[in-house]
Amino acid sequence: MSHDTPQRTWGGRFAEAPNELAQQFNASWTFDQRLALVDVEGSLAHAAMLAKQGIISAEEAETLKQGLLRVRQEIVEGSFVWREELEDVHMNVETRLTELVGPVGGKLHTARSRNDQVATDLRLWLRGELGAILGELQALRRVLVQQAERYLEPPLVLPGYTHLQRAMPVLLSHWFLAYYEMFSRDAGRVEDALNRLNESPLGAAALAGTGFPIDRHATAEALGFARPMRNSLDAVGSRDFALEALAALAIGQLTLSRLAEELVLYTSFEFGFAALPDAFSTGSSIMPQKKNADIAELIRGKSGRVLGSFVTLATVVKGLPLAYNKDLQEDKEPLFDACDTYRASLKLMAAMLPGLAWKPEPMAKAAESGFSLATELADYLAQRGLPFREAHHVVGRVVRHCAEAGKELHDLELAELQSFHPLFSAEALGLTRLETAIHRRRSYGATAPERVKEAVEVAKREVGL
Amino acid sequence: MSHDTPQRTWGGRFAEAPNELAQQFNASWTFDQRLALVDVEGSLAHAAMLAKQGIISAEEAETLKQGLLRVRQEIVEGSFVWREELEDVHMNVETRLTELVGPVGGKLHTARSRNDQVATDLRLWLRGELGAILGELQALRRVLVQQAERYLEPPLVLPGYTHLQRAMPVLLSHWFLAYYEMFSRDAGRVEDALNRLNESPLGAAALAGTGFPIDRHATAEALGFARPMRNSLDAVGSRDFALEALAALAIGQLTLSRLAEELVLYTSFEFGFAALPDAFSTGSSIMPQKKNADIAELIRGKSGRVLGSFVTLATVVKGLPLAYNKDLQEDKEPLFDACDTYRASLKLMAAMLPGLAWKPEPMAKAAESGFSLATELADYLAQRGLPFREAHHVVGRVVRHCAEAGKELHDLELAELQSFHPLFSAEALGLTRLETAIHRRRSYGATAPERVKEAVEVAKREVGL
Amino acid sequence: MSHDTPQRTWGGRFAEAPNELAQQFNASWTFDQRLALVDVEGSLAHAAMLAKQGIISAEEAETLKQGLLRVRQEIVEGSFVWREELEDVHMNVETRLTELVGPVGGKLHTARSRNDQVATDLRLWLRGELGAILGELQALRRVLVQQAERYLEPPLVLPGYTHLQRAMPVLLSHWFLAYYEMFSRDAGRVEDALNRLNESPLGAAALAGTGFPIDRHATAEALGFARPMRNSLDAVGSRDFALEALAALAIGQLTLSRLAEELVLYTSFEFGFAALPDAFSTGSSIMPQKKNADIAELIRGKSGRVLGSFVTLATVVKGLPLAYNKDLQEDKEPLFDACDTYRASLKLMAAMLPGLAWKPEPMAKAAESGFSLATELADYLAQRGLPFREAHHVVGRVVRHCAEAGKELHDLELAELQSFHPLFSAEALGLTRLETAIHRRRSYGATAPERVKEAVEVAKREVGL
Amino acid sequence: MSHDTPQRTWGGRFAEAPNELAQQFNASWTFDQRLALVDVEGSLAHAAMLAKQGIISAEEAETLKQGLLRVRQEIVEGSFVWREELEDVHMNVETRLTELVGPVGGKLHTARSRNDQVATDLRLWLRGELGAILGELQALRRVLVQQAERYLEPPLVLPGYTHLQRAMPVLLSHWFLAYYEMFSRDAGRVEDALNRLNESPLGAAALAGTGFPIDRHATAEALGFARPMRNSLDAVGSRDFALEALAALAIGQLTLSRLAEELVLYTSFEFGFAALPDAFSTGSSIMPQKKNADIAELIRGKSGRVLGSFVTLATVVKGLPLAYNKDLQEDKEPLFDACDTYRASLKLMAAMLPGLAWKPEPMAKAAESGFSLATELADYLAQRGLPFREAHHVVGRVVRHCAEAGKELHDLELAELQSFHPLFSAEALGLTRLETAIHRRRSYGATAPERVKEAVEVAKREVGL
Repeated sequence: MSHDTPQRTWGGRFAEAPNELAQQFNASWTFDQRLALVDVEGSLAHAAMLAKQGIISAEEAETLKQGLLRVRQEIVEGSFVWREELEDVHMNVETRLTELVGPVGGKLHTARSRNDQVATDLRLWLRGELGAILGELQALRRVLVQQAERYLEPPLVLPGYTHLQRAMPVLLSHWFLAYYEMFSRDAGRVEDALNRLNESPLGAAALAGTGFPIDRHATAEALGFARPMRNSLDAVGSRDFALEALAALAIGQLTLSRLAEELVLYTSFEFGFAALPDAFSTGSSIMPQKKNADIAELIRGKSGRVLGSFVTLATVVKGLPLAYNKDLQEDKEPLFDACDTYRASLKLMAAMLPGLAWKPEPMAKAAESGFSLATELADYLAQRGLPFREAHHVVGRVVRHCAEAGKELHDLELAELQSFHPLFSAEALGLTRLETAIHRRRSYGATAPERVKEAVEVAKREVGL
Repeated sequence: MSHDTPQRTWGGRFAEAPNELAQQFNASWTFDQRLALVDVEGSLAHAAMLAKQGIISAEEAETLKQGLLRVRQEIVEGSFVWREELEDVHMNVETRLTELVGPVGGKLHTARSRNDQVATDLRLWLRGELGAILGELQALRRVLVQQAERYLEPPLVLPGYTHLQRAMPVLLSHWFLAYYEMFSRDAGRVEDALNRLNESPLGAAALAGTGFPIDRHATAEALGFARPMRNSLDAVGSRDFALEALAALAIGQLTLSRLAEELVLYTSFEFGFAALPDAFSTGSSIMPQKKNADIAELIRGKSGRVLGSFVTLATVVKGLPLAYNKDLQEDKEPLFDACDTYRASLKLMAAMLPGLAWKPEPMAKAAESGFSLATELADYLAQRGLPFREAHHVVGRVVRHCAEAGKELHDLELAELQSFHPLFSAEALGLTRLETAIHRRRSYGATAPERVKEAVEVAKREVGL
Repeated sequence: MSHDTPQRTWGGRFAEAPNELAQQFNASWTFDQRLALVDVEGSLAHAAMLAKQGIISAEEAETLKQGLLRVRQEIVEGSFVWREELEDVHMNVETRLTELVGPVGGKLHTARSRNDQVATDLRLWLRGELGAILGELQALRRVLVQQAERYLEPPLVLPGYTHLQRAMPVLLSHWFLAYYEMFSRDAGRVEDALNRLNESPLGAAALAGTGFPIDRHATAEALGFARPMRNSLDAVGSRDFALEALAALAIGQLTLSRLAEELVLYTSFEFGFAALPDAFSTGSSIMPQKKNADIAELIRGKSGRVLGSFVTLATVVKGLPLAYNKDLQEDKEPLFDACDTYRASLKLMAAMLPGLAWKPEPMAKAAESGFSLATELADYLAQRGLPFREAHHVVGRVVRHCAEAGKELHDLELAELQSFHPLFSAEALGLTRLETAIHRRRSYGATAPERVKEAVEVAKREVGL
Repeated sequence: MSHDTPQRTWGGRFAEAPNELAQQFNASWTFDQRLALVDVEGSLAHAAMLAKQGIISAEEAETLKQGLLRVRQEIVEGSFVWREELEDVHMNVETRLTELVGPVGGKLHTARSRNDQVATDLRLWLRGELGAILGELQALRRVLVQQAERYLEPPLVLPGYTHLQRAMPVLLSHWFLAYYEMFSRDAGRVEDALNRLNESPLGAAALAGTGFPIDRHATAEALGFARPMRNSLDAVGSRDFALEALAALAIGQLTLSRLAEELVLYTSFEFGFAALPDAFSTGSSIMPQKKNADIAELIRGKSGRVLGSFVTLATVVKGLPLAYNKDLQEDKEPLFDACDTYRASLKLMAAMLPGLAWKPEPMAKAAESGFSLATELADYLAQRGLPFREAHHVVGRVVRHCAEAGKELHDLELAELQSFHPLFSAEALGLTRLETAIHRRRSYGATAPERVKEAVEVAKREVGL
């Protein structure tokens, strides 16, 4: 987006033609053409308002409207011809309009500036994009709930990890719901960003408002904005709305990167918890045995890209005086790229998850071994009055004994166990069985099947299932 | 914060003593001691709940409570002795508690883990800190409104800039209100972050919940959380709440950096719009004439720091599998530093602004010159039916003529003006006077005194003035 | 770039067709086609070596060579047809080759993998690009030296600033040479990056080398690499070479951002030190008087973009295990974008600087006023034995007196001066004249014309002028 | 570091006392006291030069020297008293000096400014720090070479991974050497940064040099700098040297993060390739069985911190006009923190690696299974004339067959193999044995023991073993 119009327009003051390299550097139509439809939308609202307020005549407004509709059609059909020398989307649209309707086209820009125009366009575009992203987030959350429900009965169990060490068994459904929670908050952030940006800068003109008797509430309403922005300098000079959206997207892509990492791990030979659907994995040009989790890896890697976009715009904005500066043209590409990246990543994750073939046996085996049930024994002692810290220490010695003897906890006999602490009784032996352990963790938000079942029900209602 | 307890505690499984360098690297008490008071707060709630649920006896709970209160007093009084080998705040507090109350201290950790404990502490701390930041934001917004009101009558005018070129005159009050709007949105983001994080992880234990019959709703309520978190894996493994806060702070510090930049510019010799109060500027060791806007410069520069903190934590979180990983210990220092930085910057900005001595004459002179009223002439022609694009072109030639002749617009005589376009009449001459121009921009959100006065009134109500 | 070949190639192990969305997400040909020519170059060297080592026959090699040359021609001519389903540049090139030469085309991939192929391509491409960037840096440095020489006689003087406060006068030539020094170091960093990356990964194959009797030194030499990389895992898994290049570019673009900022300031109405050539500035759609430093602003803003690219790749690489992971496909776009951005910015800066119209009078006037010669008086007292700290304090009072009395230093009379300290004599009065001051700063690297002249001479030799 | 001296010093121009909050915000002594010793070092060189040049007397110089030596002793001994109101290290040192030697202390600041002083200090400090870092890198590289040698005979084999899928077996020694290569380049970058920054800004004074007849070459030489910086504006205004160091450290910490990730993976239960020494792992407060790779996790996580430091300073520098601005005070903390972090991480990695207990059997078993020898069969067919692409396809079908039949490649009988392609002969069966495969990869830089042995020898010479 360039706020500088071609020779013809602002050239009055200029004696020399623009340097070609400079013109190219300035030009933004190669990317800001994505704003073409919202640019037309904004112009339609602006023209209607100008007529309503008597600034242009009803006939002029109708002419402008018909012209704009025709431009829109050309854009939609792909027949619109972009002209390099017109620099940006606004001048391309307006110039084409003027070709179509004659000099009256030049009246459209009355009482507005490219500064408020581009701010309006960008908010309109971003509003639409964030809406679509919310749709993808909703779809992904539905998938997560469906998967959680699917593996609830019979319950699939896998090890829960801390420090990538097996810690305690959890239900696969519980694991799905953990991500459900995260993506729900991610959606909350996108929603907040969307709501906060839904204000109309249109009519702020260059930076100070205008002397024409415009009605900013009318254009705001026509464009679906909640209200006109209250300060003209702010309206054209602020980009915190874009930064907030980028931050929400970056945080969201980081959530995806964590889920992607777990998929890469779980589908590795070493973990062996799941197999990727062929349709979402790729092979190797030199190693015929490979089945790579490319999609998950790309989603993980693309967190760099979205974070980079946030850093880009943050750096652009740093130390910029009010109001509009050309630096702000650099707001679009990071936004476009971050939206595209996040949206596609969400869609692919939602498409990929249902095709995973989970492998109950290796999962359960892993969940059981590695002493991941040791805490049960410590809790047992604590429940019998031993201070937890002491209980912890006792069981630590039990584990070390097993590790050295090459045993698992369920290999222990009662006498052996009691040699570590007399409070151990026969009942304790049962605790080292996977099912017992899972069922025992019944606190709110915990992994016992009955708790997870409740959580699934709540989540289903939330996503309308 | 370290989730690994000292030798004594988790040493049961270990044959070898920790490497000293490693222990130091692991240790977090040097910074996580900032969490000491909220750590005690969390423990008080936990202990009370354990008793209510019959997990420990009422006497034990009372003993723990008295011990914890005494620990709290030691912390507040500064007599608490931090022990290096105890690694983190949690073990320091618990160990001191056990010294004070005996082995029953070891019961406090029943049905919780350092994983949920630290997540609880960090949310509690951050909640308090964001609350304090909201207070500073409110104070700064009040200052902005007060300054806006102060310079409303007689109205101080300065040039509004785009591309750092004088564009159109604006009221100083309008400029203050532009920042008022921005800081209001910054506050909105902090508030959203605060609301979203206000959920209790306590009771999620290590990652899977617990088999003890705890009441998470009770501890959540006791600690002022809106609700317990719904999934235990999520509760201990997520840090999006910290990322969101950091993003809100980074965006806020960027807003400050823009205001700071304008203060540096406006107090320069070249602009000469304002003088800094001595109390907020410093001199030079070698150049006695200097009066530097150090505070503004530091505030501007510190935007790097807060952005860096966001990048730090974002990078930490990238690709981390669930649930807790030691990497997450790196969440605290960036959060602490960003909160301190933003809070101090807000406070200083609020303290500094009222002391600025604005200089009406140079401001007005600058607002008038540099052809910043040229748009008035273009609007004039447009109002008389010339398509705006054409009007723009005509006035561009007028400006070029003036620039070459070393004239300002108000130096032009009617004939001269009419030589550029016959639509110009005597009325047009008046438009190039500053007051006329300012008063003409009466659209909603624009800079006309009557509009700004309304905006001041609205803002005053919002900040309770 | 995708390391996964189309169905036909690695499909042996796969039962299911790829998901369309996934295929699109994986595809890299839309951007990695920029590597097409270096991909062919690498293949030519590889084929020749395979024949030299007897791995394929001389005829086969000749057939491959002719085919590759024809592919190259198609690429250069723009007649090469990119096929979406072939995912990446490598498979597009190889497939076209096989169409042209038949099944022997399938022999080209003997003893190599896409992992070493893409690493080779990327190093070749980046080597060329950094070379071109060094050319632009050299051109810009020449311009800076030429401008420094141009304004040496008669010497143009402007204020040197600290804290954006006028501090001491400096020669405009001295200012140009400051940037000359900075860009020289920026070039040094690019050169270091170029030298360090100029090693050949080719022949590392997938990650472990190959059992074929290849000659990696031969391909390294043929491709102009200094040597083959010494470890096959490193060769395919490392991207520090790309990170180093991005860091060098980011730092370089930051240098540009500082120069750009000064241009924006100096061409503002308030500073008024220089006028931009029309060819490098733009106007406003609503404010006919505007002449904006868009190019400088864009160059300044684009520092965010290049920094963002570094952050992107750094985040991608974080925590990636060896060797190749699909995440690394995300290395290309940031590299491409950063090289394009930095290169164009350098070129435009070099084109723009000579056209600046510097305005000697406002510059000199600014250099003289604002008490920027006060240090002369402090030095004078210090030379006469007053400890500098005390001298500084005395002159501080002189400045305050002048500021309050609305005087400049050269307005002071001797008696007035002596009232502040008896060590002041008539000689001191002369010190507050601009020329005296400038000529007095004769230390090495200082701003006295004779010093700057020497520096210009040295710099001219360095850039071959 | 603050360039603004206390009231007493620059107060001459000021009527009002500094705001307390502002003073605290400005103060830098809390962190820049780390520069105290190099500050004294710089002053010693400066004082000696002033005497040599006749600017102060020999006696004065001797007095200053004795005073500075006493200050140095106080700093080393820890008896130096830091005074809050003196803001920065420079004024604390100078004030203490003046207390010790009387008013002559005020002569030390002749012909210098805090601008060149702090630039000198920071370069001296960083030079020392980077030197120490190079020492740690050398130590780590020695460890890597020693480990590579240690596991060469009998050769330990583990799977090489791409996409975290087992790809081909490699020697553990080969893996160690891959990191050896990476850390060698990391060291190269640190060295380049060190060399480029080793220039003396001292004598550039505030920004324009000085009128005193100083000898900058003398102070440069006395301080071990390669030369004085050639331009005074550049000398005080540039921070690219700090950015370059931060970039080198960030890239280096990313290398560490990759090694750390692999250690976390390899010491997990699932991989089971190695056990951490107890001294470098920690347990869990709630799960007695845990043995966590905390140190590796922290090293991995701290890559965020060092990257954050780079982003911090990059953002600070963006768009700053020349020369010194207070924003630059923000250069120190990120530098200090990044150096500390990287240095400690290197030291810990070097200390931890030798204690790893590698487990030959699981490693070999993993290397053999998962079809990681499938490429051997494809190469076999290619060597017999089948175009590689076709050979790849054939073996892909073999792998799929095995996977479906639950077989490994070495379970196949000849007839079975020949059913996929008649070119397979008895010889082919031998290829699927681990040793054969490892020994076959004999290309330069490949993983065959003889190649790795050569590489170890070369590396030993490089690190002086």
